[in-house]
Amino acid sequence: MVPAMPGGPVMDLGYMLQPKLVATHSFSDAPALDVLLVPGGFGPVTLEQNNDTSIETFLRRRFDQLEYLLSVCTGSAILASSGLLNGHRATSNKALWSWVTTHGENVTWVPSARWTEDGKIWTSSGVASDAAGIDMMYAFLKHLYGEDDPNLVATMNAIEYTPHTDPHWDPFSIVHDVPGHANGNLESCVKPVGTHSRDD
Amino acid sequence: MVPAMPGGPVMDLGYMLQPKLVATHSFSDAPALDVLLVPGGFGPVTLEQNNDTSIETFLRRRFDQLEYLLSVCTGSAILASSGLLNGHRATSNKALWSWVTTHGENVTWVPSARWTEDGKIWTSSGVASDAAGIDMMYAFLKHLYGEDDPNLVATMNAIEYTPHTDPHWDPFSIVHDVPGHANGNLESCVKPVGTHSRDD
Repeated sequence: MVPAMPGGPVMDLGYMLQPKLVATHSFSDAPALDVLLVPGGFGPVTLEQNNDTSIETFLRRRFDQLEYLLSVCTGSAILASSGLLNGHRATSNKALWSWVTTHGENVTWVPSARWTEDGKIWTSSGVASDAAGIDMMYAFLKHLYGEDDPNLVATMNAIEYTPHTDPHWDPFSIVHDVPGHANGNLESCVKPVGTHSRDD
Repeated sequence: MVPAMPGGPVMDLGYMLQPKLVATHSFSDAPALDVLLVPGGFGPVTLEQNNDTSIETFLRRRFDQLEYLLSVCTGSAILASSGLLNGHRATSNKALWSWVTTHGENVTWVPSARWTEDGKIWTSSGVASDAAGIDMMYAFLKHLYGEDDPNLVATMNAIEYTPHTDPHWDPFSIVHDVPGHANGNLESCVKPVGTHSRDD
């Protein structure tokens, strides 16, 4: 049972057959980490309703040793609750914008952004595993390895994904009528990576 | 360890920390199913190398009772091996096209297709959980519930995904130089679902 919306009715997902996910480590025995990604969905809502701040504690303990801290969707609410976003720019899922943005202090919540980058913190719109998360991850891997890295190009074309490469394109800030959204274009034109020479 | 390509060198994924996935049922005690989706990736390659045909056996046993059988990426190689694609249209990941299309008899492999639909069998390009799989799934849910279904529109906009809605748009058949590909456009312009009234 998960809440459909913060404070709202719960959804009964009992009819779903889904495999069990078993973690490799707990917060107390996790190995050293270079990059940490905090996913979203309704998990952060449930954790808050249960006063569970174990992720926030883990993030504060590990942040200095991380090279990068990333979040997808409502994961940025947890980053904000941990205090690590104070004074920084961030974004989140626009469908849950009003709830997410109650977290943290002096966070510059960017209403129209597919993703944001501020120092070593990257935050994405959308839910885990969706396209906004993939768009941020493609931008992040370009940042790490360079746009022309042959493994990156090969991987993007093996998964057959055409990324949105403009972080400011965010039609969902318009769809969900987020306060302060830019009057941008709903439409974005995409094509496979590494195809500049074919039609530019 | 998984093979990088059929017959090719193996990739060492030992550096990856990933949670364990535990299935809820085995092939022998699976409940009645309305819809069955066979995912892809390198799993079908490994199964073939190990002469493991348990999925094919399960598909043949359950096919008549299914309302729909779907595949993503190389999952269509398993559908083909099972014989269920004989005489039918199908597609697959274009990066592994030459391997996938050796399977089955009298299968009409469609070289330029984001996804195909033939009777109760739907097949998708791309890998599991990527955009081509999501594009097919959006088309499939439209087929089941209708384009204007409010839950479908709300879900697509909650995950913040702008689908490609033309099954014939397939720039990856061009990128991977699949024999017989259409000379289509590499670029596709996408926007959120349910926004016709805003800018049409």
